[in-house]
Amino acid sequence: MKAAQQFASDNNAGICPQAWSILAEANQGHASAYGDDWWTKQAIDRIRGLFEADCEVFFVFNGTAGNALALASLCRPYDAVVCHRLAHIETDECSAPAFFSGGTKLLPGDGADGKLTPAIVEEIVGRRNDVHFPRVRVLSLTQATEAGTIYQPDELLELTARARHHGLFVHLDGARLANAVSTLGCSPRELTVDCGVDVLCFGGTKNGMAVGDAVIFFDRRLADGFARRCKQAGQLASKMRFLAAPWIAMLDDGSWLTHARHANDCAARLEARLQTLPGATILFPRQANTLFVGMADHHLQALKERGWRFYIFPEAGGARFMCSWDTDIAMVDRFADDIEAILTGQDGR
Amino acid sequence: MKAAQQFASDNNAGICPQAWSILAEANQGHASAYGDDWWTKQAIDRIRGLFEADCEVFFVFNGTAGNALALASLCRPYDAVVCHRLAHIETDECSAPAFFSGGTKLLPGDGADGKLTPAIVEEIVGRRNDVHFPRVRVLSLTQATEAGTIYQPDELLELTARARHHGLFVHLDGARLANAVSTLGCSPRELTVDCGVDVLCFGGTKNGMAVGDAVIFFDRRLADGFARRCKQAGQLASKMRFLAAPWIAMLDDGSWLTHARHANDCAARLEARLQTLPGATILFPRQANTLFVGMADHHLQALKERGWRFYIFPEAGGARFMCSWDTDIAMVDRFADDIEAILTGQDGR
Amino acid sequence: MKAAQQFASDNNAGICPQAWSILAEANQGHASAYGDDWWTKQAIDRIRGLFEADCEVFFVFNGTAGNALALASLCRPYDAVVCHRLAHIETDECSAPAFFSGGTKLLPGDGADGKLTPAIVEEIVGRRNDVHFPRVRVLSLTQATEAGTIYQPDELLELTARARHHGLFVHLDGARLANAVSTLGCSPRELTVDCGVDVLCFGGTKNGMAVGDAVIFFDRRLADGFARRCKQAGQLASKMRFLAAPWIAMLDDGSWLTHARHANDCAARLEARLQTLPGATILFPRQANTLFVGMADHHLQALKERGWRFYIFPEAGGARFMCSWDTDIAMVDRFADDIEAILTGQDGR
Amino acid sequence: MKAAQQFASDNNAGICPQAWSILAEANQGHASAYGDDWWTKQAIDRIRGLFEADCEVFFVFNGTAGNALALASLCRPYDAVVCHRLAHIETDECSAPAFFSGGTKLLPGDGADGKLTPAIVEEIVGRRNDVHFPRVRVLSLTQATEAGTIYQPDELLELTARARHHGLFVHLDGARLANAVSTLGCSPRELTVDCGVDVLCFGGTKNGMAVGDAVIFFDRRLADGFARRCKQAGQLASKMRFLAAPWIAMLDDGSWLTHARHANDCAARLEARLQTLPGATILFPRQANTLFVGMADHHLQALKERGWRFYIFPEAGGARFMCSWDTDIAMVDRFADDIEAILTGQDGR
Repeated sequence: MKAAQQFASDNNAGICPQAWSILAEANQGHASAYGDDWWTKQAIDRIRGLFEADCEVFFVFNGTAGNALALASLCRPYDAVVCHRLAHIETDECSAPAFFSGGTKLLPGDGADGKLTPAIVEEIVGRRNDVHFPRVRVLSLTQATEAGTIYQPDELLELTARARHHGLFVHLDGARLANAVSTLGCSPRELTVDCGVDVLCFGGTKNGMAVGDAVIFFDRRLADGFARRCKQAGQLASKMRFLAAPWIAMLDDGSWLTHARHANDCAARLEARLQTLPGATILFPRQANTLFVGMADHHLQALKERGWRFYIFPEAGGARFMCSWDTDIAMVDRFADDIEAILTGQDGR
Repeated sequence: MKAAQQFASDNNAGICPQAWSILAEANQGHASAYGDDWWTKQAIDRIRGLFEADCEVFFVFNGTAGNALALASLCRPYDAVVCHRLAHIETDECSAPAFFSGGTKLLPGDGADGKLTPAIVEEIVGRRNDVHFPRVRVLSLTQATEAGTIYQPDELLELTARARHHGLFVHLDGARLANAVSTLGCSPRELTVDCGVDVLCFGGTKNGMAVGDAVIFFDRRLADGFARRCKQAGQLASKMRFLAAPWIAMLDDGSWLTHARHANDCAARLEARLQTLPGATILFPRQANTLFVGMADHHLQALKERGWRFYIFPEAGGARFMCSWDTDIAMVDRFADDIEAILTGQDGR
Repeated sequence: MKAAQQFASDNNAGICPQAWSILAEANQGHASAYGDDWWTKQAIDRIRGLFEADCEVFFVFNGTAGNALALASLCRPYDAVVCHRLAHIETDECSAPAFFSGGTKLLPGDGADGKLTPAIVEEIVGRRNDVHFPRVRVLSLTQATEAGTIYQPDELLELTARARHHGLFVHLDGARLANAVSTLGCSPRELTVDCGVDVLCFGGTKNGMAVGDAVIFFDRRLADGFARRCKQAGQLASKMRFLAAPWIAMLDDGSWLTHARHANDCAARLEARLQTLPGATILFPRQANTLFVGMADHHLQALKERGWRFYIFPEAGGARFMCSWDTDIAMVDRFADDIEAILTGQDGR
Repeated sequence: MKAAQQFASDNNAGICPQAWSILAEANQGHASAYGDDWWTKQAIDRIRGLFEADCEVFFVFNGTAGNALALASLCRPYDAVVCHRLAHIETDECSAPAFFSGGTKLLPGDGADGKLTPAIVEEIVGRRNDVHFPRVRVLSLTQATEAGTIYQPDELLELTARARHHGLFVHLDGARLANAVSTLGCSPRELTVDCGVDVLCFGGTKNGMAVGDAVIFFDRRLADGFARRCKQAGQLASKMRFLAAPWIAMLDDGSWLTHARHANDCAARLEARLQTLPGATILFPRQANTLFVGMADHHLQALKERGWRFYIFPEAGGARFMCSWDTDIAMVDRFADDIEAILTGQDGR
């Protein structure tokens, strides 16, 4: 049953040892349900410590739910959210924001390298201001972006200043925030609350947990009613300790960051191999654990035929190769070898 | 951190050894996300085998989501659901059915022992038939009921025949279906598809899993679009193998049933001790793992002061004592001892 | 095509002369759409004058929309609304509040004469305070009530004080507010903003307009975004002048009140005839334009066979006879004659 | 109060004489509410006659509601609708489709002249077929289009054949269907049911009524539950006769078509004047009552300063001049004179 390693997504990896170990520990005896337990309280404290902020923290089952619940709490049904056209909320959550909020419209912009710019935000916000079109209420950013790039803190600050100017809330999809922190070498606080983020969805699943992301309100007033919102949406785990405990272990020993660093390093290793190859084009600057590569269709096909798994993103113009917390460096090398063989015509078949 | 055993809820128990063991096994290497993996396929097959039916099976994170998603797929926003006034969907899911469906109204009936009767269903269905009131579309039953009682197969058949007669779908909240199967000694199929159930929410969490229930459509046509519905609602797990694998282990070795039987037996043992005690009234026939007991407020208070945890249900008229897959028999006895001491005035304090 | 007069509902009556006349006037030439016209501005001013308050005013197509939009703006999907079990929002709006708000639950109470009391509100608010059940957020009252009774100002004040104490907003369904104002002889302001009402749905249709009710926010901050909410819900009329103009005419000449008084008087006249009849029981104190009468089924049947139209309300225990702005007094007398003949056995047939 | 004629929108015009006259007639005496009256039945019959089809017909308050209710009845929340990027449902209904359906996503395409093509539909439908993105379920077309152009019957047939091939329903926004019928000279049936339209929203307001559009289901099975859907959404008029009666008058004497023809003719007259002017560019083929004209900003500004009212559509690249059922030909000429004077520098001011 053990599947080979792949480069399709970091959510194909399993549970990391740190998470596994504390799950075993948390699984002793009984615990109060729905978050009224020691593990959950500790995990919340750890997250507050990590962000050096007295934030409100909620654990939900996955990133789609986290993002959509957060946006629903910031928006009314007649509001709109500015996001990138490659944003996960736009491309891969099956219209969850509109479902959770009861109608909210996404207004996608198209910035280079998967990133929005102040000018794009201005353009979208300025388009309409009449009752026949939704009111722009939220700026949603992703860090690291879906293109595998990263916003510098000053880029974030400029964007959130634009948002503030227009009375928008700022939501950050941080499914891979750890990867961005690793690359930038700054503190989680510097990248979030100090940059004007109101609500962060902090990914745990992709970083080595079994299930569960954290929704973090830096402006606590925005969290009013959020517990019931989670409950109503089927996002309040009864055995909450199993969502919460891994955060304790991974924040305490820093593995949340070392895992991200490892994934980033693997992607960098792959990039180093591919960037000099004829027939491979690095599509976006590789800044986290994701590498987008333009290659001829028959080359991609040949790569698939060798058993490698990865996604092709027509809207990005190529293939996405993603590394995870447990990617085997030897596997990266074999993958690069195969790509090289295909691109240089040494494909034995 | 290990909390003492309690009688508040079976969701205060942890992960059972069978689930734990297979989680370790499933956590080897990579697996495709979102259910496209060996474990999920096997788990679905096992569930089809258990119910001897070619059903559609979906794993979601919890029972609230399972129930609400199922009802939303059976209802339009202007439809209504008949349920018992003690039904979990009415009392403990924070209006999730109305949220997921976009407006569906619950029409609670008040039958004895937490059970609906054909007459009650008739009365509710017959109340209104005009455009100004929702159209009754679903009969929702719970087995075992929230009162800890059980519908006999012939009771179910009568109820679902009434539902059919009025064109209603039948939803079964089976958060504790295993407990009912154990008590009745019939097959899962006999209690569900043979009784006219269209959609079953089959509980895993309360029976020893970490997270996750199964939504099972016996009428496969009703499952059209359900995968996207789950995705949109944030209920499609990326690392699905961890929701699915425990079903394999627990169905293969029968622990899904032995756990339920153990919980039932513990509740029966407690019942046997309490039913002869002065000052304790068994409120509903004890048929599964839940015992409702009427006791004086100061007695309940004294019990809490001894450190026991349990819920008081004013709408049921007393306290609920619930046993779980791992309830320690010695703990049951000590609990009964304490109750006896309190009721017979031998409370040393 | 001219149908005979009836006692089924005041919405079976047509457009009153005052409304008709100003419609003709407003139908000269072109006017800007969506409320940006002279008529709408004037109508809003008139309503502000009537309530002696700097309120926000919106015209919507009907009372169901007005109530549901107002509640949706006061509630989040996980909130709840306390109302009477006979409230129109509970019995006759097809679950519109849950649809518009995306899940809000109604919590009906059962007070005498169609009226809630502070004790009932306390009981409902006090039932639950946990995350598994909706948070009570709004107290919704109806004036005149669906039972044809009226809250005295001090009754309203006591109720809204209870609401304030629990942090609830107060919504008033004023589909027949004019009838209550007529009965009580106080000013509209005294019955609304002075009584702590936050949002009023003020009925125009039943009082002689073709279509359209006014949603009035006395706390203007609560109206934030309401224009877009109306637009999104299909409740922003393009030719708004035709919804607005009748308010000008009817408020200017006082016909909004004289119409209500006429309807009340007709109901009083009918009551005077019936209250001494054997076999007729006045079910609720008649205080507005609605009379509920308990009569034997065969008597009601006989009345229908004579061609009279009215509704039977099993939940109220009898028939509802309703008078409107144009009810013919002679028709009231003939109706009373027929009832008397039936009840006293002088029914010639 | 009588506003000057304008070219902003056909919804700035009032009630036409035919509608007015029958409103007066319908306003005699009482009528049963909610559509259970003679006028409504007659109007439905007339519409069935007009379309030569045994369709289901519902009258709602406006086009936004009609479109959104129709789409909600064709879609589930996780479905998507293909439409043109200029479609009213995308640009001017404040995300109503997502609100009414609880999440449905619009997928706008960008065809020339405001029209979709089979190739565009294919491209959008073919983009995604996975659970992480909404399922395309409806093709929504507008006739006449928002660009003032018209689909030929064979264009419609090709589009709806593509829709059928992919299992999509076909919704037609016919706010200006009358204008298209007038231009094409074919029967309403030929342009709708014969072209594979499932649901039509047939505009009445813009064609001379006070309020109200008709939602027409040619496939009657799709109308299941639609009456309650309307009621729940606050779109069931109590005094329905006033929405219905104008349809009788305007279909009986053909004014629904002569009004449209007049508006078309006025737009054609304006076009004839402008098409030879320097500095004016006709942006889309003028085929109905709407003319889009590209002009320099300062020219448009000068035109506004002369008191003319019209909209500027940046997304279309110019100004929109729209004629209505009551546009005065002399006014068209004066408007053209003013434009000419401005463009040719003869602007005396």
